[in-house]
Amino acid sequence: MKFLAEIEVMPHKELLDPQGKTVANNMKNLDIHGVEDVRIGKHILMRLEAASEAEAREKVDTACKKLLANIIMETYEYALHPISE
Amino acid sequence: MKFLAEIEVMPHKELLDPQGKTVANNMKNLDIHGVEDVRIGKHILMRLEAASEAEAREKVDTACKKLLANIIMETYEYALHPISE
Repeated sequence: MKFLAEIEVMPHKELLDPQGKTVANNMKNLDIHGVEDVRIGKHILMRLEAASEAEAREKVDTACKKLLANIIMETYEYALHPISE
Repeated sequence: MKFLAEIEVMPHKELLDPQGKTVANNMKNLDIHGVEDVRIGKHILMRLEAASEAEAREKVDTACKKLLANIIMETYEYALHPISE
């Protein structure tokens, strides 16, 4: 079976996000007012082959923990969609 | 009114995504098999104040086009959620 995992990796809520902060501060220079907070993370689309949904979830979890997210500073969540070939 | 915009910026489908490609190729080294494709973009949460939903959409569009996405190489889409104060 083939799956598409849609993964979101975001900085922990408790941590400052300097990149997001900089973007938020610069909105005024673009004449965009009213922006209160910006947080920037990663959006990852991963297409994979697995024998079952459980196996696909195991692969996505391992990939997130070992490579895609820095668990100390980031959290991840994902949705898994079966795709037809 | 306050809104939360959930923005996804992704490399154009037609373009190579070298970062995603590298990640996909390295999955094998982590003993994760069956990964066929990885594409990496940005996931941005933006909290903003606007008089109406239309105004909020205009602000988010301007922010995406001028700052958050490189329209030549990336596409963006977003969902806008009203939030209570």
